[in-house]
Amino acid sequence: MDKYFGSSIWPVRRFEKGESHDCFDKVAEEVPVALVYNGISHVVMLATPADLEDFALGFSLTEGILASPEEMYACEIVEAENGIRIELDISSERFLYLKERRRNLAGRTGCGLCGTDSLSQAVRIPAPVTSSQIFSVETLHSGFDQMEKMQVLKQATGATHAAAWLDGNGHVSCIREDVGRHNALDKLIGALTVSRSDREKGAVLVTSRASYEMVQKCASAKIGILAAVSAPTALAIKIADETNVTLAGFVRKNGHTVYSHPRRLI
Amino acid sequence: MDKYFGSSIWPVRRFEKGESHDCFDKVAEEVPVALVYNGISHVVMLATPADLEDFALGFSLTEGILASPEEMYACEIVEAENGIRIELDISSERFLYLKERRRNLAGRTGCGLCGTDSLSQAVRIPAPVTSSQIFSVETLHSGFDQMEKMQVLKQATGATHAAAWLDGNGHVSCIREDVGRHNALDKLIGALTVSRSDREKGAVLVTSRASYEMVQKCASAKIGILAAVSAPTALAIKIADETNVTLAGFVRKNGHTVYSHPRRLI
Repeated sequence: MDKYFGSSIWPVRRFEKGESHDCFDKVAEEVPVALVYNGISHVVMLATPADLEDFALGFSLTEGILASPEEMYACEIVEAENGIRIELDISSERFLYLKERRRNLAGRTGCGLCGTDSLSQAVRIPAPVTSSQIFSVETLHSGFDQMEKMQVLKQATGATHAAAWLDGNGHVSCIREDVGRHNALDKLIGALTVSRSDREKGAVLVTSRASYEMVQKCASAKIGILAAVSAPTALAIKIADETNVTLAGFVRKNGHTVYSHPRRLI
Repeated sequence: MDKYFGSSIWPVRRFEKGESHDCFDKVAEEVPVALVYNGISHVVMLATPADLEDFALGFSLTEGILASPEEMYACEIVEAENGIRIELDISSERFLYLKERRRNLAGRTGCGLCGTDSLSQAVRIPAPVTSSQIFSVETLHSGFDQMEKMQVLKQATGATHAAAWLDGNGHVSCIREDVGRHNALDKLIGALTVSRSDREKGAVLVTSRASYEMVQKCASAKIGILAAVSAPTALAIKIADETNVTLAGFVRKNGHTVYSHPRRLI
């Protein structure tokens, strides 16, 4: 795994103040990562090759492949010719479930060859979250200030999104970065699971927009608050409303907007 | 289709200047869109329901499902219960090819159930582009100024990315928006194909970062210049280098950085 880091150095031509000069720049890595369950390759994602164990666990949980972390027996990162293989060893019960699901090809990529109506399976709605976490708006904004200082890969490359955990005491206790905003969130949820953090006590902060999938991932992880630097989509609001997730957007220095369940931000 | 627009109005609670008030906000739509080829559902994407014919054509071309626009005989947008179906009628030759490809499950989502090593198929490298287009840096920057004024959906919602075409005369002649940056690019390439624009004479400008997939899509459309407001990934640079695409990033008021084939920007 020595070959892979979150970033690498590239020769570039920079134009500034009316002049060009050749120099070097740090760039974020993006690598095809295959998630392989019990020897069966399930999906290939393009991801930043850092914190991949967290990614594998978080993705498996938020996509409903695993119902609990105990169902994952082992996780090995293997460097392959064209990318990285994450080889997961999961319980035979969940593996049977995955095979059945693949046969029906649920999820975002449907397969009409099997006669499935893929649209009806595209949007999964988790059970409503029961988190009673409440934050003051000052604590929320302080969380974003803390997160900004912790984005090491972003500071080096300018290319990565971050997802961070604002714990019940108002401290950002965990942050994960990736070129993909969904991957950063999966990595965070994986890391929170490993550290046995109480996900009902805290909030997820993200540097990106909030899509439906990000709300769906938070709700399936029982997280009650998702706050984003940028805008949500209409589908994200709809799912946040249905799953009892507080969704905030446009969190900037001087304000923010709450799109669902505003009672958790006072 | 009357139900779908690029945006919709939602009740929100806004916090600004230390005070909360309830009001309404315009939010970008994000809808599951199934691409159905000759009756067979191929993939479901989350997209902004605008310019979907352009999206269908562009996606089909840049993903290599179609080799030329003439292979698409019809394209119908159908409102379904859980989203939108785009029903495409394509040549039997391409449909056979798609079925074969699905059997091998090439592309980003591999299927180990069929015994395929999906990693080896995850990164597709198109033939090198031959575009001899050259722009001055002033024209490039003027293009970004033009694009910014044309982002109607972004101005309304703050949530959408744009991809725009800077034509050989230095005018932004086409722009497409979507909550997904790859979708915006596919829509643009579809629109350029419909209008029979010479894709070797111009540049693609995007408001987002530049991932591998965006370079791959430009190269497969024979576009020689891709310029992004934000950062590229290392894999994007590698593929741009191999496919003879000029890749520029961090295009801002006072400068930019060129990561590959800088000869096209003088």
